[in-house]
Amino acid sequence: MGKEKDRTLTFYNHYDVQPVEPLDEWKSEPFTPTIIDGRIYARGVADNKGSFLSRVCAVDAYQKVYGKMPVNIKFITEGEEEIGSIHLDEFRTKYPEKLATDGIIWEGGSKDIDRGPLHVTLGFKGLCYIELRCRGAKNDLHSLNAAIVQNPAWRLVWALSTMKNEKDEITIDGFYDDVAKPTEQDMEYLEKLNYNEELMKESMGIDSFINNLTGIDLKEKYLYQPTCNIAGFKAGYIGEGSKTVLPSYAMCKIGLRLVEGQDADKVVDRIRKHLDKRGFTDVEVVMLSGKNPYRTDTNSRIVKATLESAKEIYGMEPSVYRNSPGTTAMGTFCGPTSIPAVSFGIDHAESNIHAPNENIYLEDYINGIKMTASVIHKFGMDE
Amino acid sequence: MGKEKDRTLTFYNHYDVQPVEPLDEWKSEPFTPTIIDGRIYARGVADNKGSFLSRVCAVDAYQKVYGKMPVNIKFITEGEEEIGSIHLDEFRTKYPEKLATDGIIWEGGSKDIDRGPLHVTLGFKGLCYIELRCRGAKNDLHSLNAAIVQNPAWRLVWALSTMKNEKDEITIDGFYDDVAKPTEQDMEYLEKLNYNEELMKESMGIDSFINNLTGIDLKEKYLYQPTCNIAGFKAGYIGEGSKTVLPSYAMCKIGLRLVEGQDADKVVDRIRKHLDKRGFTDVEVVMLSGKNPYRTDTNSRIVKATLESAKEIYGMEPSVYRNSPGTTAMGTFCGPTSIPAVSFGIDHAESNIHAPNENIYLEDYINGIKMTASVIHKFGMDE
Repeated sequence: MGKEKDRTLTFYNHYDVQPVEPLDEWKSEPFTPTIIDGRIYARGVADNKGSFLSRVCAVDAYQKVYGKMPVNIKFITEGEEEIGSIHLDEFRTKYPEKLATDGIIWEGGSKDIDRGPLHVTLGFKGLCYIELRCRGAKNDLHSLNAAIVQNPAWRLVWALSTMKNEKDEITIDGFYDDVAKPTEQDMEYLEKLNYNEELMKESMGIDSFINNLTGIDLKEKYLYQPTCNIAGFKAGYIGEGSKTVLPSYAMCKIGLRLVEGQDADKVVDRIRKHLDKRGFTDVEVVMLSGKNPYRTDTNSRIVKATLESAKEIYGMEPSVYRNSPGTTAMGTFCGPTSIPAVSFGIDHAESNIHAPNENIYLEDYINGIKMTASVIHKFGMDE
Repeated sequence: MGKEKDRTLTFYNHYDVQPVEPLDEWKSEPFTPTIIDGRIYARGVADNKGSFLSRVCAVDAYQKVYGKMPVNIKFITEGEEEIGSIHLDEFRTKYPEKLATDGIIWEGGSKDIDRGPLHVTLGFKGLCYIELRCRGAKNDLHSLNAAIVQNPAWRLVWALSTMKNEKDEITIDGFYDDVAKPTEQDMEYLEKLNYNEELMKESMGIDSFINNLTGIDLKEKYLYQPTCNIAGFKAGYIGEGSKTVLPSYAMCKIGLRLVEGQDADKVVDRIRKHLDKRGFTDVEVVMLSGKNPYRTDTNSRIVKATLESAKEIYGMEPSVYRNSPGTTAMGTFCGPTSIPAVSFGIDHAESNIHAPNENIYLEDYINGIKMTASVIHKFGMDE
């Protein structure tokens, strides 16, 4: 065992969760953790309370075994992650000395559906979440007026149809200009990832991927390409049967996952200009949240400690994600000061994050504690 | 006075009404007719109980004055109009002899906001009401999967964008093939209609009409052109704030108002073929209801009796609507046997039909009785 160093390791997690609805699809009480067949079911157990507790237990265990910690430990545990970590940036800029650290272990991490190696993630896509809003008449009108009164739902349909085409190419003016091309190292990481496409499709409940993608093309699009996703659309009457109404308002929620090189504010600006240029000045663009993408330096100490620990604890090489398809506030938080960060955790491909019957494997939880303790040790010690 | 003929005149009305909610917006008890400043307020007084009673009173008065009726009188008074007259067609085909008639006075009719001439309507647009439905993954997924999993909301957006363009031209293949061009007589009727465009815009709560239409172009589009109206659109998360979801289902309700020459079943067939041709085989087209347009022969006896009576009773030429922008079951009911039908009644532009404080003018009610009695007389007698 080497010598302790005066380093600081920080854990980022969150205790807030997504709504539990629809309640009737849960097989257990969502807020009463319930063990069934080796899995713990509860809202938030995978995202992200389980991982958070595994860090706490690891610190506790380490102290009990070694008497003291080899590094300074900081916890950042927020309650606003699910609504976009809206005050994290303010917190970061307000208390730089409190937050000073040499490495961060970020929330998240997963296992594939075949329960193979641990995922270790070294970067995340950003997320620009916006609403498009359009107003027509002052109130909903009888649809007999549709021949002469503009319908805001149609306006949104037409506006949206200029933003992405059927080949899934995002057609917002200049959108791809800032998108970084994957490097050779990026493609090497991709090659090593072992995707079981059939299992993925089965677990997602789909017959094929977009554009029938497969192999390296599938992985490249999944991990290194930006998205433009309609997360919600509402206009007019959406109950059973028919109502002859001309809606006065239409709203669409869009989440755009951003990759290396892109910036959330810039993307919103591009969308505004794109719509204006096509006459959609009546379509309001409201940014609900913006997180930039971030990728950690692969040569950093925390990356090395993590990859070594994963191999030891799980007995096999981890799956290294240079870039996650998902988003955390890692970009906002670590980007400005380039703090090295890694992400690993205790959830798995069928954890049903944000959905009914969210769950983790008990086994993964125990290993998550061991893994965290090992990273603390390796990060703190010079061999 | 001429000689009585063995003719039959039928009145179509309904006694069902729309829900009264929101109750706190009514200034009187909705089911207690209340006279305030020369108007009767009650749910259904305009749509359609007031008109119905005016027919009954007219028959009663006629009998009292003349001792007997000059024609056979039939009443068709249903309780399902507000839910689409769902059994009227079955009734028609089951009892053709009971329903045999030489002319029908249909529910409805109105006065403009300036309380000018009586509206007499000689036809209605049809209404083809459909849902477009599209399914993606088995369940909603986390939107981080959007790069590789098809989004049904996008599929609907793309499908819809092929069905109508920003100029409000319906681009469903062959949609306009069956649309009858307005005849010279149609255009003459249009010319005579007196539209106060500023009052219309004010009452609709809009700044301008579609394509900035005005004058005869506005009237022509309003009354003689078909529509394709998004009445509702639902996909994914539509609550407050952001939820990063990839919807598994998207649904859009569309009401297409049809004009002379068009057929609801044929329109649905055209939409299906249009979508298939463009690869949208994954978009389901479900017809919720279909009513064909109908226009009465302007040379028919009931039309002549009505127009003459209107001039006499109201002291001015009526506003003749060759075609209403709205829809009734007139097409379904009168179309197959080409029964001549006219529509006039006792409501007005501010009757608040289907809304709180539904009302009619007492004066219009009295005139409605006189008008009906006069039509009975003229329809029955040979001069």
